[in-house]
Amino acid sequence: MNNEAQNKMKEFKEYINKIEYLNSAASLLYWDMSVNMPKKGVEYRGKVLGHLTAEIYKLETSDTMKEYLEYFSKIDDLDEVHKSMIKSLKKNYELSKKIPEEKFKEYTILTTQAEAAWEDAYAKSDFSLFQPYLEKIVAFNKEFVEYWGYKGNKYNTLLDKFEEGITVDKLDNIFSELREALVKLLDKIKNSNVKIDESIFKNNFSKEKQEQLSKLILEKMGYDFEAGRLDESIHPFTIGFNRKDVRITTNYCDKDLRPALFSSIHEGGHAIYDQDISEELYGTGLGDGASMGVHESQSRFYENILGRSKEFWTYFYTEVKKIFQEFKDVSLEDFYRGMNVVEPSLIRVDADELTYSLHVIIRYEIEKGLINGDIEVENLPEVWNAKYKEYLGIEPSNDKEGVLQDNHWAGGMIGYFPSYALGNIYGAQFFNKMKQDIPDIFKQIEKGNFEVIHEWLKENIHKYGAVYTPSELIKKVTGEELTAKYFIEYLNNKYSKIYNL
Amino acid sequence: MNNEAQNKMKEFKEYINKIEYLNSAASLLYWDMSVNMPKKGVEYRGKVLGHLTAEIYKLETSDTMKEYLEYFSKIDDLDEVHKSMIKSLKKNYELSKKIPEEKFKEYTILTTQAEAAWEDAYAKSDFSLFQPYLEKIVAFNKEFVEYWGYKGNKYNTLLDKFEEGITVDKLDNIFSELREALVKLLDKIKNSNVKIDESIFKNNFSKEKQEQLSKLILEKMGYDFEAGRLDESIHPFTIGFNRKDVRITTNYCDKDLRPALFSSIHEGGHAIYDQDISEELYGTGLGDGASMGVHESQSRFYENILGRSKEFWTYFYTEVKKIFQEFKDVSLEDFYRGMNVVEPSLIRVDADELTYSLHVIIRYEIEKGLINGDIEVENLPEVWNAKYKEYLGIEPSNDKEGVLQDNHWAGGMIGYFPSYALGNIYGAQFFNKMKQDIPDIFKQIEKGNFEVIHEWLKENIHKYGAVYTPSELIKKVTGEELTAKYFIEYLNNKYSKIYNL
Repeated sequence: MNNEAQNKMKEFKEYINKIEYLNSAASLLYWDMSVNMPKKGVEYRGKVLGHLTAEIYKLETSDTMKEYLEYFSKIDDLDEVHKSMIKSLKKNYELSKKIPEEKFKEYTILTTQAEAAWEDAYAKSDFSLFQPYLEKIVAFNKEFVEYWGYKGNKYNTLLDKFEEGITVDKLDNIFSELREALVKLLDKIKNSNVKIDESIFKNNFSKEKQEQLSKLILEKMGYDFEAGRLDESIHPFTIGFNRKDVRITTNYCDKDLRPALFSSIHEGGHAIYDQDISEELYGTGLGDGASMGVHESQSRFYENILGRSKEFWTYFYTEVKKIFQEFKDVSLEDFYRGMNVVEPSLIRVDADELTYSLHVIIRYEIEKGLINGDIEVENLPEVWNAKYKEYLGIEPSNDKEGVLQDNHWAGGMIGYFPSYALGNIYGAQFFNKMKQDIPDIFKQIEKGNFEVIHEWLKENIHKYGAVYTPSELIKKVTGEELTAKYFIEYLNNKYSKIYNL
Repeated sequence: MNNEAQNKMKEFKEYINKIEYLNSAASLLYWDMSVNMPKKGVEYRGKVLGHLTAEIYKLETSDTMKEYLEYFSKIDDLDEVHKSMIKSLKKNYELSKKIPEEKFKEYTILTTQAEAAWEDAYAKSDFSLFQPYLEKIVAFNKEFVEYWGYKGNKYNTLLDKFEEGITVDKLDNIFSELREALVKLLDKIKNSNVKIDESIFKNNFSKEKQEQLSKLILEKMGYDFEAGRLDESIHPFTIGFNRKDVRITTNYCDKDLRPALFSSIHEGGHAIYDQDISEELYGTGLGDGASMGVHESQSRFYENILGRSKEFWTYFYTEVKKIFQEFKDVSLEDFYRGMNVVEPSLIRVDADELTYSLHVIIRYEIEKGLINGDIEVENLPEVWNAKYKEYLGIEPSNDKEGVLQDNHWAGGMIGYFPSYALGNIYGAQFFNKMKQDIPDIFKQIEKGNFEVIHEWLKENIHKYGAVYTPSELIKKVTGEELTAKYFIEYLNNKYSKIYNL
């Protein structure tokens, strides 16, 4: 960049910094709302958040933004980071600008109403109350796709919003391979003679002790408590106000040790990612994960591949026994098996590591059908139930445990679900490379040397933030295109041992 | 207002709402920084707060603001609230605009540096390290007074910033009357035979139990926990994000029950005020206390007049004994006396109800002298120590427990201290009227009927927010001009009984 361009870039980053400051403030308002806020504060908080969001939108879609983007689109010697910065801001600018402002406002109002309608429908377990809203949301999304344009399948455009470069063609291949493998493995497990005793995890565990264990593990994993904190909220989540203040929440269940424990590890995986992002990316808009799916790959890697491995607990089990004398007479093997029970279930968020992806694939197939007009909203409950029957062998007895269980669609998030399963796939593919780079990795885990894993993730993935698209990143890290093969291999290996297949 | 003016007012309130939303967000950022933030978050948080503050400043001093103010200055049928709204926003606008922007920036940088220098000087107990900064701050304030203009004494302009309508003439009268009375009463107490045993309060009190007691009392006082919460921070404070989310903090001392207890009650007084402000004042800029002094009158009323009264503890002492068995054998009388010990001391924030105002009067006299050129910064330690000797009969042995103890001046707050003593005076004057309106008030307190007090404060003071200036309010509520007579009377009565004078 010549001098003029360099100065202009400095200015532009100041401009982006302002957006990031407002995002940081909005995130705190949101965090506080979930963790601390007294109940009467909600109405005004909504207004404050609404104002900040509107200000952010203004800055992201302003003429100033347009001028900067036009200027830098003509500069041809941008380095990798700045090239990515301009590309990503431009994408965001166009996503917003191509939709007429009136449409966008209507849609915002619609999703707010739809969320309320969903709550009501969910409480009453009655899809028909939500149906008219969902119909409108689907119609809007179809219209948006026309505004944005599409290549190949219409659903591609929505997928690309959340997972750049992912297409229906790719997902059809990957998900059908995965689905077949999962259904096959699940069948074998159903016929296995091994019965796992989960009751060891069902007892009265005090919140204080659960918190103690979560903190101990998080600390050891590499989560920096001087740049974060652990709190409680109804739904566990991770939120960063900047890379030096990334907070996680969990939710304690006093009758089962697992939910809070694995939520903490899961959110810890997200948070470590955010804490590791290079500080140089402040003011570029790239100080975030590469995508929702890549972010999920980190949380699921920590939660499942690491956090439900025998080696992990070989290291931690002594600590567990110190805190909870309930496990005095429980063997490590039983403890390990108890956290790896596979059991088809109806609710995605409670699903085990194996069946989880099937829940996601069902949603993917439905979304694709809705956007392409192959499935109508009014038929959703039947379509839903039939797919559960087919893939998982069980059927919801009502809408609440079926089609109404998630609120993503009410919020207008269509195209987002696949990222959850992609997270598993990315995670296993990364792990495969990690094992090549660190041949004695399982020994290291047993010894509690999580530093070596954290360092690998930081250097190969985390520090880059959103500089690379998911497909660029997976190629850069593993040398291969995205493939489900490592995830399938991993599951087959792990569960063949556990279930003696 | 005609139709045009009404519409314009609606627009204007939308504009003010935006300022209030940003203030609400900034307040949460600040609260979180004191209560929750992990230590590495501080640098970025400073930037976010800096950005929001700058945005607020821009909106408060914009041409849009100027146009609205000019428009409404010409409308002559504004009602009381809107008249006050325009007056108050205009005052604020002019305070900001009359200072050249460059000067203001310089001053902001100076105070940031001065705060750091004060911290260093305080840690080393060496005034000379802070002196050059304070000299500059005083010089700036003198210059500001010239920009802003003044009537009579130059210090009037600074007083008026915090306590509209208060002048040196008024304060000289009021404070000299108060000072004489306090010094006289203090002398008698020093010569009293009554010795109070404070040791009953010095024990090991768990944080959990202290919190339990604070919450119980706050709830009963009328603090709405559905519109607030109690947390811990190093320095206790109250902060509102809107009237339905007003939070307080306290600081637990495990060796003395009193500090956290009375901080909680004090902050509760502030918070109840904020919670009671009429919702109609949203978007007027008047949704705050009438002044810093009036705010302090509410906190001190609850903390001292109510919270250190025999009647208050007649009601609560059973609860205290239930929570702390340490008081099993302590009589109510001893408990009451133990929280009303009078003892000249060096540190303002730790001072008792009686001597507290003397600390403030000393600062008032010094500030007045500095701004009028009668006292030089370099002589401050001697001036300070001499005044402590004269009014309180004790002398600091170093700067840390003397002139360096408060950081108000480092932050550029000159003219603010008097509000602390005015709070006591307002409080007693309000209370005098309250006793006339509720003749059996002491009976009501003994029965724990704090509702009647809360209601009186709400209807007479709280709900009006900042619609009235402090002098308008005191006149409106009590029918009299501000006078120290009721505060002096109250102290004489109370302490004559306690110390058998």
